[in-house]
Amino acid sequence: MTTAPNPQTEKTRLRIDGDRLWASLAELAEIGAYDDAATGLVGVDRQSLTDEDGDGRRLLVSWMQEAGLEVTVDGMGNIFGRREGIQPELKPVMAGSHIDTVATAGAFDGCLGVLGALEVVRALNDAGIQTRRPIVVVAWTEEEGVRFGTDMLGSAVAAGRLTLDYAYDLVDEASLRFGDELERIGFKGMRPTRLDPPHAYVECHIEQGPILAQRGYAIGVVTGVQAISWQKVTLHGRAAHAGTTPTELRADAGLAAAQIIVEVRRMVNSGEYGQLRATVGHVRTSPGLPSVVPDLAEITVDLRNPDDALMAEAEAHLEAFLAALPESQPGLRVETKRMAKTRAVPFSDEIQNAIEASAKELGYDTMRLMSGAGHDAQEMAAIAPTAMVFVRGQYDGISHNPREYSTPEDCLAGVSVLADTIVELSA
Amino acid sequence: MTTAPNPQTEKTRLRIDGDRLWASLAELAEIGAYDDAATGLVGVDRQSLTDEDGDGRRLLVSWMQEAGLEVTVDGMGNIFGRREGIQPELKPVMAGSHIDTVATAGAFDGCLGVLGALEVVRALNDAGIQTRRPIVVVAWTEEEGVRFGTDMLGSAVAAGRLTLDYAYDLVDEASLRFGDELERIGFKGMRPTRLDPPHAYVECHIEQGPILAQRGYAIGVVTGVQAISWQKVTLHGRAAHAGTTPTELRADAGLAAAQIIVEVRRMVNSGEYGQLRATVGHVRTSPGLPSVVPDLAEITVDLRNPDDALMAEAEAHLEAFLAALPESQPGLRVETKRMAKTRAVPFSDEIQNAIEASAKELGYDTMRLMSGAGHDAQEMAAIAPTAMVFVRGQYDGISHNPREYSTPEDCLAGVSVLADTIVELSA
Repeated sequence: MTTAPNPQTEKTRLRIDGDRLWASLAELAEIGAYDDAATGLVGVDRQSLTDEDGDGRRLLVSWMQEAGLEVTVDGMGNIFGRREGIQPELKPVMAGSHIDTVATAGAFDGCLGVLGALEVVRALNDAGIQTRRPIVVVAWTEEEGVRFGTDMLGSAVAAGRLTLDYAYDLVDEASLRFGDELERIGFKGMRPTRLDPPHAYVECHIEQGPILAQRGYAIGVVTGVQAISWQKVTLHGRAAHAGTTPTELRADAGLAAAQIIVEVRRMVNSGEYGQLRATVGHVRTSPGLPSVVPDLAEITVDLRNPDDALMAEAEAHLEAFLAALPESQPGLRVETKRMAKTRAVPFSDEIQNAIEASAKELGYDTMRLMSGAGHDAQEMAAIAPTAMVFVRGQYDGISHNPREYSTPEDCLAGVSVLADTIVELSA
Repeated sequence: MTTAPNPQTEKTRLRIDGDRLWASLAELAEIGAYDDAATGLVGVDRQSLTDEDGDGRRLLVSWMQEAGLEVTVDGMGNIFGRREGIQPELKPVMAGSHIDTVATAGAFDGCLGVLGALEVVRALNDAGIQTRRPIVVVAWTEEEGVRFGTDMLGSAVAAGRLTLDYAYDLVDEASLRFGDELERIGFKGMRPTRLDPPHAYVECHIEQGPILAQRGYAIGVVTGVQAISWQKVTLHGRAAHAGTTPTELRADAGLAAAQIIVEVRRMVNSGEYGQLRATVGHVRTSPGLPSVVPDLAEITVDLRNPDDALMAEAEAHLEAFLAALPESQPGLRVETKRMAKTRAVPFSDEIQNAIEASAKELGYDTMRLMSGAGHDAQEMAAIAPTAMVFVRGQYDGISHNPREYSTPEDCLAGVSVLADTIVELSA
């Protein structure tokens, strides 16, 4: 990076090195690689604060340093790489995502956004371009939430929604503490965790869904993140013999669970709750014997809605439905526990427009779409103008699976749009 | 037992020693006793052909021999104790049940019938009574079916419905062979397994249901055993992200499983299938993560109906329902596997009437009721006039659970009725 000012007085089309981007993705994917029996492919398991995550972080830091970035780490282990701007006192343009993964991951989820942002910096270096505003590449800690139970953890603390103490005291299934594990891998940094709001935050991410591919777009402009609600419902019934117990005397916990599953799908299909999505991903009944009426059933209910008011109506309806279940099965008891709840987060129109304009200039048609999944960007949206660039995924956008795949061309397209947007915003 | 003939020329009311019966039940229950954490009670685990079952069998054999019975064991390990009759050439009256248990059993299931029949013999001995026909006490092998997968195994082979080879080749979860385990515990007997049909077969058993207690009867006259059908249904769907995947593109295996569970209950409630009972005791979904649409679900469907024709209609309807499931979720695949199927078995009117008459003479009101559970008696019904005496159970007749309990008075009532019936039939 040169120190002589080289202001961009006219638009410089920044050329992204697609091969170098792809090679970076492949090299990072070797950390935590494992043979996935279910798919026959090589997957990635680089869960938050494991040794593999530590190795991935160290690789990222080395790449950041090679690219001339000033690397700092905050109290949550969030990693920042700063590229100085001509006017260092200005708020930076921030771009990134996460490099922690689920247990059965592919190479792109989160990593595309971090390595894409890094590749933008390398391209600026290659072109000898200085930007007015500083640019910061960020990798947030524990975005997936699979190990310590709360997703978007690093970005949520940085944005001030959750406290450092809350995060440090989270434990995993082996009762290991987040704070202890962070120290163990050597990423409990000194930089203050509460983030000074950047000028803007842009995140490039794979879509993790089928819409862009179905509609024929490589690039999507993300309008916001849906409201997300998770609850665990436990049904307590009465164990009884399948043959000898009259039906009217049963309190069948499994039946009640099934009624809930069917009802949430009916709610979606009714259209009364807008674009509600409902998923019961986990079902467990006990004792689980063919000739015994189940006395216990546990399910998780995952609701999503781009509209907060309709989400509230859906949740109220579900609550009433659950409360009424014992009427048809006297003796049945219903327990619910909220596991997570986030409101719909609209992204900045200004940043969305910037992304769309950049894509257009680069020759990419785009469509606007909501994000069905949670992202660090939704935390950043609370403190700075924020939006996301979605990249089309193959195989219906399957993610959290080694089959997760976006083509080199589509990855290049997404990072090119990201680059142009960053350059615009940092001008 | 005296050798001088002592024919019963007039009705001798046989007095059953209730204390001795209760003590026998308690002593047998010590074999395989364990501390059941779920209930805080002592339960019994004396599964078929385990060391505990071997010990239980040896205790029974010693009691049989003490009672002067000639003990033989057949190729299935079924244990027979014969009390000679005045006319040894006549077909005997047979009474018994099973002493193998489920993993979390009480003291009464099956044991009441075997030790009750033994107690009848002891009472005949005490009274110095000789019967015209011989009397045989029997304990059938592997009635529960929990270890080797097929219930009423010993009685089914004796009755000729299943072959010895079929039984010998059954394996348990540890891949141990029935035939090998039978030899290991020393109960592979020499008596020919195919049973000469007895004159009659009577079995005293706890109800394992709530009806007698609800209706205020200590004793029930059992009219037959319901048709029983078990199938395993496996749903194959498509794993997908709960947030990003549009509902219309999902093949949700868990939803399909829930729809089946709700439908079989609707079938029962509709009344179209008579006294159908339906239970889905086992539900498992995969991968079981809150934000992933399940791509696999396994359930068991247990159907019961006293009417074979209505059972067939119910099964046909369910088959059509399963076949139609992919219409609402393209890509869903449904697989079914039949695990067990037995036709309704009506018991002999003559033996039912004999039981009812005996109960009446002893001062017990009775009601007639169907057995919801399978019993060895249903196998015997194929080769000899058969019926059962049900004894009221406490706590809604809970069974397969250490809480299983019938009072000493009710047990005495049941065995007294059994005794009187046996005496009548062997006269």
